[in-house]
Amino acid sequence: EKAGVVENGKDKERVMIIGGDGYCGWATALHLSARGHEVAIVDNLVRRTFDDQLGLQTLTPISSVHTRVKKWKQIKNKDIKLFVGDVCEFDFLADAFQQFEPDAVVHFGEQRSAPYSMIDRSRAVFTQHNNVIGTLNVMFAIKEFAPQCHLVKLGTMGEYGTPNIDIEEGFIEITHNGRKDVLPFPKQGGSFYHLSKVHDSHNIAFACKAWGIRATDLNQGVVYGVKTEETSLDEALINRLDYDGVFGTALNRFCVQAAVGHPLTIYGKGGQTRGYLDIRDTVRCLELAITRPAKLGEFRVFNQFTEQFSVRDLAKLVTEAGRKLGLEVKSINVENPRVEAEEHYYNAKHSKLIDMGLEPHYLNDSLLDSLVNVAIQYKDRVDYEQIMPGVSWKKIGAKPRTGVALAKS
Amino acid sequence: EKAGVVENGKDKERVMIIGGDGYCGWATALHLSARGHEVAIVDNLVRRTFDDQLGLQTLTPISSVHTRVKKWKQIKNKDIKLFVGDVCEFDFLADAFQQFEPDAVVHFGEQRSAPYSMIDRSRAVFTQHNNVIGTLNVMFAIKEFAPQCHLVKLGTMGEYGTPNIDIEEGFIEITHNGRKDVLPFPKQGGSFYHLSKVHDSHNIAFACKAWGIRATDLNQGVVYGVKTEETSLDEALINRLDYDGVFGTALNRFCVQAAVGHPLTIYGKGGQTRGYLDIRDTVRCLELAITRPAKLGEFRVFNQFTEQFSVRDLAKLVTEAGRKLGLEVKSINVENPRVEAEEHYYNAKHSKLIDMGLEPHYLNDSLLDSLVNVAIQYKDRVDYEQIMPGVSWKKIGAKPRTGVALAKS
Ligand SMILES: NC(=O)c1ccc[n+]([C@@H]2O[C@H](COP(=O)([O-])OP(=O)(O)OC[C@H]3O[C@@H](n4cnc5c(N)ncnc54)[C@H](O)[C@@H]3O)[C@@H](O)[C@H]2O)c1
Ligand SMILES: NC(=O)c1ccc[n+]([C@@H]2O[C@H](COP(=O)([O-])OP(=O)(O)OC[C@H]3O[C@@H](n4cnc5c(N)ncnc54)[C@H](O)[C@@H]3O)[C@@H](O)[C@H]2O)c1
Repeated sequence: EKAGVVENGKDKERVMIIGGDGYCGWATALHLSARGHEVAIVDNLVRRTFDDQLGLQTLTPISSVHTRVKKWKQIKNKDIKLFVGDVCEFDFLADAFQQFEPDAVVHFGEQRSAPYSMIDRSRAVFTQHNNVIGTLNVMFAIKEFAPQCHLVKLGTMGEYGTPNIDIEEGFIEITHNGRKDVLPFPKQGGSFYHLSKVHDSHNIAFACKAWGIRATDLNQGVVYGVKTEETSLDEALINRLDYDGVFGTALNRFCVQAAVGHPLTIYGKGGQTRGYLDIRDTVRCLELAITRPAKLGEFRVFNQFTEQFSVRDLAKLVTEAGRKLGLEVKSINVENPRVEAEEHYYNAKHSKLIDMGLEPHYLNDSLLDSLVNVAIQYKDRVDYEQIMPGVSWKKIGAKPRTGVALAKS
Repeated sequence: EKAGVVENGKDKERVMIIGGDGYCGWATALHLSARGHEVAIVDNLVRRTFDDQLGLQTLTPISSVHTRVKKWKQIKNKDIKLFVGDVCEFDFLADAFQQFEPDAVVHFGEQRSAPYSMIDRSRAVFTQHNNVIGTLNVMFAIKEFAPQCHLVKLGTMGEYGTPNIDIEEGFIEITHNGRKDVLPFPKQGGSFYHLSKVHDSHNIAFACKAWGIRATDLNQGVVYGVKTEETSLDEALINRLDYDGVFGTALNRFCVQAAVGHPLTIYGKGGQTRGYLDIRDTVRCLELAITRPAKLGEFRVFNQFTEQFSVRDLAKLVTEAGRKLGLEVKSINVENPRVEAEEHYYNAKHSKLIDMGLEPHYLNDSLLDSLVNVAIQYKDRVDYEQIMPGVSWKKIGAKPRTGVALAKS
């Protein structure tokens, strides 16, 4: 097989983007639509409901999904079809599949916050139900209505945990007692959210083998940044940026903290090391996966990130970037709300997407423009009460917790 | 730590048996009650509903759970407390925990048939929801109401699949690029049922680490036989024995087939090799796990079986046993309804329970008494239409299938 020549062989794909109203999904939908693919968004907008319920808000003022899609049509004269509904409801999903007839499904549509999954029992159960059953339904819809369709599923680097050996891309060759096999890389999810992705990966691997469907599991690192070529075209197309203790991810949170003069909140010792990538690389990785699909029956796994940093590294980088803009940035070590190793070996492979043509944006180059400056631009929208972590891995209990209780605890 | 001296240090434990009306659970409840433990059964009786819905029946005429418990009281003057309800409903489970205050919870209470999980989408979803959410609830009940309580969870050897290397008990030391770690043994479940157990194992490992609760994951092999010391005491105490294509397991099915003159149904080439154990060893393993509990924070994994056989081996053994009783036993190779390797390497470790004192019953000694003779005794109850497999791993679809359609397909 020649590089770039693909089994499907199609330039323009019909791509269904589940979770297309979310942070990664919206940017991906526009990126693919701009490149001529036929795009449909499937989303039940539950992410917006989480914000409403917990009293949270994206830093950036995002429009409704309907306004977003209309604005895109105005600016680019491209249609994005909208299916508003829950992938856990199979009849809805079946209908969307039959109407849209996708060549590829990008599945971003899950509850994706580790802290959210650790708020209380009902959220832990919701997260695993929503994510695992949603993905099962997507697999069944493909088998039933679009057996050629390529499932591109978002996993997370967090599925691997922090083993004391190099992390490979999905599989590892193990020699044991004189025999050898290539087996799924052992998983050690560190929250009910991360575990839901571990479950998904096992389910999808099975479906590829048993049914001959094709899938790519993208074990994505932590995404940072908010601007892509397309989301920057108009304020109505702007992407969400979460900085709160529940949905904000490390680097995005630090940039907002720097912008408003809040000390950077380093959890524990700060030696926690993870893979990171720019949202402009997320959308490009998705494009690469879609235009070079897995073969029928194949279950591919790519580690989708470009650089590794420890939390301490990030704090240093943000502190320096802040200084260039005349901000005085301090750091504090807060009690780690998570249960995780704070100093550990970490070396994760991530060459497959690079081999396919990914040209990474590096953090050092984009930190000021795409991150700290955006944070400064919208800093009046920051709710200081949402910055500190309010969810503890150890204190989670059976009793339901409301958003208000969350902020105060 | 001296052998036999345990952290809990209690001779008599309060043991909650979830799924205590089922095949393994009922035998275990009586075994532990007979040995002086305080036993409660938690069960929603859904297993009986599956039979009703699919038109199936256990070979042995089992009594209602209420009759069972009353008869046990009559015979042994021992109380078994009964909580009839669904562990997926947390309020019910919480109430049972608060009333009974268990020292140990044995969790058998899952949908446990691989073919059932492959009937249609709704059964696949039911299986993963029922099993994963039920286990999450049990974990939360322990954390909230009984943090010292030992979770003894039934997994299956099927979680490992059939790797080309030796299968260890739960964990494997991997040396990779010059570094070393002990990691969870990679899992490759071969049905939505097996996968639900893989998910459970990952969730429980996390809870032990994050919350400091204690758990033993028993990766059980295929159980055979029906009689234990206690279930043989009275016909009202008799255990269930499934021989149908959905709930029957390989060896139990072969014995019933031999008894009624149906050819033994070997799926595909018959080289599929698995671990097996006598139900009298199941109950003993549970007793060992309970009286020698895991430490707080520990996640232990034992492979619970005593001998390995291929399907071909089993057919040969049953054929010989039949001959001794004057039965002419034939075999046929039927198209394999599953997706699985039919010839493969298989060598699974299972020394931990032996080291703790398990004295296995071997198949050769019990085949006639506990199996073929029981099958002959009840052979008039056999429904021939239920013997052939009716569920295909490849043909599963989104459309709901009724029991009637199942038998005819
Ligand atoms: N953001 C990151 O740093 C990051 C890192 C690694 C992996 N990921 C993964 O990428 C995916 C997208 O992440 P994100 O940051 O864009 O999350 P997000 O919460 O912003 O977007 C997810 C979208 O999915 C929708 N959704 C959730 N459940 C649904 C359901 N049952 N039916 C229909 N729609 C549903 C939500 O409404 C939301 O719009 C997730 O699967 C996430 O786990 C994200
Ligand atoms: N039988 C075997 O050969 C075998 C082999 C390996 C592992 N196991 C495991 O051992 C356990 C017991 O197996 P079994 O053969 O006795 O199964 P079974 O179906 O006979 O018993 C399971 C019991 O759990 C109950 N149950 C199911 N879901 C429940 C829920 N949500 N709430 C309350 N009760 C519920 C059912 O009503 C049933 O009585 C299962 O977890 C199974 O996966 C069994």
